[in-house]
Amino acid sequence: MIDGADKFYDECAIAGVYGNHEAANLVYLCLYALQHRGQQGTGIAAYDGEHINSEKREGLVADVYTKKRLKKLHGKIAIGHNRYPTDGVFSTRNLQPIIAELPIGDCALAYNGNLINAFKIRRQLIQDGVIFSTGTDSETIMHLLAKRLKNEDFITALSNVMTQITGSYSMVFMADNKLIAMRDPHGVRPLAMGMMKDGYVFVSETVALDLIDAHFVREVEPGEMVVVDASGVKSYFPNGKVENPAPCVFEHVYFARPDSFMFGQSVYEVRKGFGKMLAKECPVDADIVIPVPDSGITATIGYSEESKIPFELGIIRNHYVGRTFIEPSQNIRDFGVRVKLNPVRNLIKGKKIVVVDDSIVRGTTSKKIVKLLRDAGAKEIHMRISAPPTSYPCYYGIDTPTKKELISNTHTEDEIRRFIGADTLGYISLEGMKKVLIDNNFCFACFTGQYPINPADLIED
Amino acid sequence: MIDGADKFYDECAIAGVYGNHEAANLVYLCLYALQHRGQQGTGIAAYDGEHINSEKREGLVADVYTKKRLKKLHGKIAIGHNRYPTDGVFSTRNLQPIIAELPIGDCALAYNGNLINAFKIRRQLIQDGVIFSTGTDSETIMHLLAKRLKNEDFITALSNVMTQITGSYSMVFMADNKLIAMRDPHGVRPLAMGMMKDGYVFVSETVALDLIDAHFVREVEPGEMVVVDASGVKSYFPNGKVENPAPCVFEHVYFARPDSFMFGQSVYEVRKGFGKMLAKECPVDADIVIPVPDSGITATIGYSEESKIPFELGIIRNHYVGRTFIEPSQNIRDFGVRVKLNPVRNLIKGKKIVVVDDSIVRGTTSKKIVKLLRDAGAKEIHMRISAPPTSYPCYYGIDTPTKKELISNTHTEDEIRRFIGADTLGYISLEGMKKVLIDNNFCFACFTGQYPINPADLIED
Amino acid sequence: MIDGADKFYDECAIAGVYGNHEAANLVYLCLYALQHRGQQGTGIAAYDGEHINSEKREGLVADVYTKKRLKKLHGKIAIGHNRYPTDGVFSTRNLQPIIAELPIGDCALAYNGNLINAFKIRRQLIQDGVIFSTGTDSETIMHLLAKRLKNEDFITALSNVMTQITGSYSMVFMADNKLIAMRDPHGVRPLAMGMMKDGYVFVSETVALDLIDAHFVREVEPGEMVVVDASGVKSYFPNGKVENPAPCVFEHVYFARPDSFMFGQSVYEVRKGFGKMLAKECPVDADIVIPVPDSGITATIGYSEESKIPFELGIIRNHYVGRTFIEPSQNIRDFGVRVKLNPVRNLIKGKKIVVVDDSIVRGTTSKKIVKLLRDAGAKEIHMRISAPPTSYPCYYGIDTPTKKELISNTHTEDEIRRFIGADTLGYISLEGMKKVLIDNNFCFACFTGQYPINPADLIED
Amino acid sequence: MIDGADKFYDECAIAGVYGNHEAANLVYLCLYALQHRGQQGTGIAAYDGEHINSEKREGLVADVYTKKRLKKLHGKIAIGHNRYPTDGVFSTRNLQPIIAELPIGDCALAYNGNLINAFKIRRQLIQDGVIFSTGTDSETIMHLLAKRLKNEDFITALSNVMTQITGSYSMVFMADNKLIAMRDPHGVRPLAMGMMKDGYVFVSETVALDLIDAHFVREVEPGEMVVVDASGVKSYFPNGKVENPAPCVFEHVYFARPDSFMFGQSVYEVRKGFGKMLAKECPVDADIVIPVPDSGITATIGYSEESKIPFELGIIRNHYVGRTFIEPSQNIRDFGVRVKLNPVRNLIKGKKIVVVDDSIVRGTTSKKIVKLLRDAGAKEIHMRISAPPTSYPCYYGIDTPTKKELISNTHTEDEIRRFIGADTLGYISLEGMKKVLIDNNFCFACFTGQYPINPADLIED
Repeated sequence: MIDGADKFYDECAIAGVYGNHEAANLVYLCLYALQHRGQQGTGIAAYDGEHINSEKREGLVADVYTKKRLKKLHGKIAIGHNRYPTDGVFSTRNLQPIIAELPIGDCALAYNGNLINAFKIRRQLIQDGVIFSTGTDSETIMHLLAKRLKNEDFITALSNVMTQITGSYSMVFMADNKLIAMRDPHGVRPLAMGMMKDGYVFVSETVALDLIDAHFVREVEPGEMVVVDASGVKSYFPNGKVENPAPCVFEHVYFARPDSFMFGQSVYEVRKGFGKMLAKECPVDADIVIPVPDSGITATIGYSEESKIPFELGIIRNHYVGRTFIEPSQNIRDFGVRVKLNPVRNLIKGKKIVVVDDSIVRGTTSKKIVKLLRDAGAKEIHMRISAPPTSYPCYYGIDTPTKKELISNTHTEDEIRRFIGADTLGYISLEGMKKVLIDNNFCFACFTGQYPINPADLIED
Repeated sequence: MIDGADKFYDECAIAGVYGNHEAANLVYLCLYALQHRGQQGTGIAAYDGEHINSEKREGLVADVYTKKRLKKLHGKIAIGHNRYPTDGVFSTRNLQPIIAELPIGDCALAYNGNLINAFKIRRQLIQDGVIFSTGTDSETIMHLLAKRLKNEDFITALSNVMTQITGSYSMVFMADNKLIAMRDPHGVRPLAMGMMKDGYVFVSETVALDLIDAHFVREVEPGEMVVVDASGVKSYFPNGKVENPAPCVFEHVYFARPDSFMFGQSVYEVRKGFGKMLAKECPVDADIVIPVPDSGITATIGYSEESKIPFELGIIRNHYVGRTFIEPSQNIRDFGVRVKLNPVRNLIKGKKIVVVDDSIVRGTTSKKIVKLLRDAGAKEIHMRISAPPTSYPCYYGIDTPTKKELISNTHTEDEIRRFIGADTLGYISLEGMKKVLIDNNFCFACFTGQYPINPADLIED
Repeated sequence: MIDGADKFYDECAIAGVYGNHEAANLVYLCLYALQHRGQQGTGIAAYDGEHINSEKREGLVADVYTKKRLKKLHGKIAIGHNRYPTDGVFSTRNLQPIIAELPIGDCALAYNGNLINAFKIRRQLIQDGVIFSTGTDSETIMHLLAKRLKNEDFITALSNVMTQITGSYSMVFMADNKLIAMRDPHGVRPLAMGMMKDGYVFVSETVALDLIDAHFVREVEPGEMVVVDASGVKSYFPNGKVENPAPCVFEHVYFARPDSFMFGQSVYEVRKGFGKMLAKECPVDADIVIPVPDSGITATIGYSEESKIPFELGIIRNHYVGRTFIEPSQNIRDFGVRVKLNPVRNLIKGKKIVVVDDSIVRGTTSKKIVKLLRDAGAKEIHMRISAPPTSYPCYYGIDTPTKKELISNTHTEDEIRRFIGADTLGYISLEGMKKVLIDNNFCFACFTGQYPINPADLIED
Repeated sequence: MIDGADKFYDECAIAGVYGNHEAANLVYLCLYALQHRGQQGTGIAAYDGEHINSEKREGLVADVYTKKRLKKLHGKIAIGHNRYPTDGVFSTRNLQPIIAELPIGDCALAYNGNLINAFKIRRQLIQDGVIFSTGTDSETIMHLLAKRLKNEDFITALSNVMTQITGSYSMVFMADNKLIAMRDPHGVRPLAMGMMKDGYVFVSETVALDLIDAHFVREVEPGEMVVVDASGVKSYFPNGKVENPAPCVFEHVYFARPDSFMFGQSVYEVRKGFGKMLAKECPVDADIVIPVPDSGITATIGYSEESKIPFELGIIRNHYVGRTFIEPSQNIRDFGVRVKLNPVRNLIKGKKIVVVDDSIVRGTTSKKIVKLLRDAGAKEIHMRISAPPTSYPCYYGIDTPTKKELISNTHTEDEIRRFIGADTLGYISLEGMKKVLIDNNFCFACFTGQYPINPADLIED
């Protein structure tokens, strides 16, 4: 995790298109729409029926792909990937899609999630004489597949690989004139399927379908493997029908764009529902309710609607902030937050204010926001969080600080309130949250510590 | 104007700092906060007591200034400038601040506005043997000043220049160990003054003061020339006291950030007031009211508050959109709008919707937005505009299409409504607008065609 | 091969340093000195005792490595690679050193040459379930090694790999706190060993030793594997002692820098010797003898010395020529040559001229040079080539056109003379060449078609 | 001057084309051929009959101009400029051509040389109210012209400007559908005129004519102003016929490319003649004579021819050296020279060697070269210089160190010999030099301190 980052971060976006002569261009647009899920680097691989051409680079989608670069990516099947801004070593090596030459020809894989038993498998493979050229789970999967292809046909092999790996994953796989989309048996990470006049498309979020004017068909189901080829669309469940899906509730809390439809519900409606429930559970007498922009806006609308406290955009976000800025040597307090967020002073002054945010991770950002509002003259500041306290790290593909860095894990609610300097602090309850969701089959591990997939195998540095 | 641009665009931001050993760094931060007023290029000039060093380049503030580049800009006085994205010829030549060597030493000037009699003066100067190396009004002003310095002292000369030029201007000027801030007698463009522990600062908008933790003292008055030097702050009115100021109302409508305080009022409050007035004047029975983000949000909050129609963020803006994107050759309808804006389908479907925007310029964007909502299933679409019809071009430093390209100039309200495809269309009235403002001394020329400064002298291509 | 390229091109430079705390910096300098052997891209990998960090990018050594990038490459062992400008697909994937995680830890490999049985081995490995992520021979070697490590210790495994592969190779290998340098049993490609106060160094050419002030110890022998570790330097011959070495004579003709010492002789002396022999074998009455710069200069000095015809630098080379230049649409004859080479008109005019070049590949460049000289007023033009006709492609790591594109393969000497427009044409004979070399154990395949290593296994597109 | 630079440096190249619809493209090619005269930055301005479009940037010609950028430069008249790598402040401001709007329309100027009275004129102009936006002499000239245009027609004005300025200059000027080429009355800097099927061309050196296949007509004469327009070519001598021309002899010694024809002679022949004369005047018993490459090669050929000592290329230059290289922290002796130059050890060892260079400026480089050769085993080292000692700075547009930094100014020949460590040291005499030149009308000020144009007015920092 980037030092001191004070949010949970999604790690990837994926997209795949089958059967369209502009496959790479369409994947490019999908990645454009999914940029919020990963900004470090991006890659597209296209299959021209014989070979795979690819383009992978550090940077934003808008900067990486030029007309000339996209032009090289011919073929009617293409997959792509956006990567989240970690700053580890060897980062360009780890850009996806991962490409390899298999007995069935060139193949490529784009992956969102985290394999729980990847390290174990990797260690075994290395002992067996396999070499790894990246640090990605994708490469592990590719090796498992390659080994099986000696004795098994492609689809059988891929199905069997799905029974070997545990963890969270949404993947698109391209080989042998096929596009395959897979979602892990718990369905932790999202994956939606769309249809165009010419071809099929799979994307992390439905907003990508909107941009390319594709029709949203359905979500790939937990544990499902969808195979698209010249003979049509086939569905497999290599691990059998799934009993207890556990999609990531934090997609609804924060990761997904509000205009996406995910896990059977509109993200906007769920997020607003959290805000309404929060207002019911943690009411307060106040003059206005304001979001921490942009992520807190939808929940705030819900809070306002339920509480009848007027909604105001009391903090303005500067969208031109780059990755770095040069701080003056003379101390400006809370500079890091201030460069992004600025209070509307006339609105704040003398008011009792409810501020809605989606989470408190380390607490440092919340503390600065409370400070900004206090300095702008707020009379009372009531912090409301549209998720329960995030007390446990995620092992399923989300970048979270370690347990001891999570303020909710180490401090009581009142200690946190005092640390951030708010007059009151309130979280939505897990029960309240569940009432907003259509069913309770979600992963709530970051709130409860009850992990649907046993992370015991996971050995990390 | 960029071909087909469908907004009015502000042309510049300026900033100046006096008496702080980190002057250039602070100007850099001010320009960071004022990026919304100009994105083509940016420049900073710093005066080290003897010479001026500068840095001017195409690009965003976050990209142009590196530590190394800022380090060269030593000295306790600095000024800076952001430039708007026109794409004319010679663009890098026109980046500001303009720097020149005068008998009193190096001097630099950053300018926001438009001189009405610049062409006339320029033509005369060229006849007199003066050479121009840029196409800027700033250079014209510099020449007028240089000529006067033969017989007049610096401050007298600068005062007298102010009597020679007509038009709109807010300027910061740096020479002779002084920082001078000037605002034209009609006060068309904004200019605010702030104070720090060490030194003074002048900026286009108060949000820049917020970022550097400076205290907002007051606005520079129309017609005022403020001189800051070692002996303190002095104020002059070279054209006498101003009777009829005419600050630009469109700053309140659209240009300024809502968290700025300008022309005696909070931009947020005025903009929200416009929304409330709009709701009073153009009521409609609807399920939800939504903004065209981000600029329409504040007025929409006002509309919602007045009308009691629930506020929703029905359209989501993708903030990762770069300057260019590569469109697929297969036609995707309304691609240009779609890549930036996406409706929240579940929210829109089957609803009667009020959409609030700040202006309709050519009408093409509004038409696409209505289309997007209609495709998302909206039952009724009621377009509401938080400014009167913009029927006349601006000659005071705003980039507007020509008269005949302004749809309000050539079409009736009902024709526009049919063109954009809305069920109803409503604008706030000029009278309504005036009620929201603290006084009526504003420039409303883009609505009325009554120009407070006669643009007859203006000869443009 | 790049379309229309009219030279043979070497494919790589390699370098490795052991036992110096500035290992990566020294490798960087070696690559700087070896830039002439490869300009497409470059890479360095450094081993810090536990992990390998690396930097690989397209571009020249001078541009790729910054202080910041080199700083990350800590450790006392490092290897590096320069790559030749082919413009195939996936080029960045193929940059070396190749890095992999083995059971013995991270390892890296840099390779110069061409495996004859690589395709066969690769096909077999893919059938066995191995995946390839690059198109390099290095990866093939890495896989062979990885497989053996299950049952064999590192040095044994590496020795045995050397018995599996056939072809030309000079390699440096880094793993397990060791640096290993290997040269194929025919010794086709060069590899020299040097010693510093702290540590050992292996490089493609001795010029790299000169730059870093290392002492030239000896060349790695054909078939030798040199292992350097904490216990000192050990030598192995996994394929037994070599009977018939066949180092590449074209290194002496053209590839190597004249200030290098290679295959037991000074390149400068050999090249000059070729020129003298050429003068003996193909004398002509002429006023001056001039080189095609820069590669022809040394042989021309020899020709002049033997023939007593005065040496002149009759053609000047523009060293500022970039990779591309924009040709005017109006036709300028022989533009491609002209932008690089320009005759000294006053010198050429009315003279009988001998022009010495090292080879005629397609003949198109020679034709243009003759034309340039003719246009400059040369009375007679006698082309002399310091190598026999290059009639056969190379399969040992040199980029040559196909057989039918080699003008010597398809045309008689007189046809070539007429094609290029020279008055006479002469080549050094193979016998003459052999007299200059200290022994006859060289690969002359590009002249004779007699390949010391059977290229039958080589299946290429 | 760049700190520690140990050469004299030419400051510019200029080029102008009239009457060709590819004018800008041809100027680009001329600048390509003249890159050796300036590598900091480059600019081209083209006149489309009404307006001037331009492109000016830091960097090499090969990097700065893209197809897209050249395309904007339409019109049948164009001028261009390469600038030498000084590293002063404001450098991009000073890139040429200088462009201005005059009463006669847009005009542009590219300049090579140095005005002696520029500072005086500039100071006066600033007192008169003129503003300067660059630090160039070109701008001073432009102002003088602009002032005169009030009362004089263009050609008269320009003629009269030529009577006001003193110093060295070769200029191309573009305005009013005319191209004007001017050379100062002493003809210090070169300027050649060429003719194409379509149009005329003026360039600093004839090598540029060779590249674009233009016919060399003649040199512009000292004091001549050549005007090319629709009515043909006219010649003026605003200062009357010139009595004592003083072209820069150092162009023949070092600056010009040997394949250029300049000041009535072939540079190659003159430079070789210097070498022969040097052999006559400073003979020595030696085994071989070698150049310091590349600049010393031609003189060395002459030395060898006269002395019968065999010519060898005993030092090899690495042409891939970039502007910077990262030195290892461990000391490598004479690294700066070593990275560029490497001795051919086998050739040098045990030999008595004559080394020919064109000048000794500070002496530091020569010292390192002697050291390199000594370390390579040279028995005796005899340094020979193909110009007399350079004891005086140049004020006519050449970048030289100050007087006290010139080793010849402060030390005797024998002191220099001991400093550089050579066994003997010899310079060509001024008289010897004069015998090689066709007449004695040259500027020899850097050798004699007798300045043909009084530099008293020159006040520099």
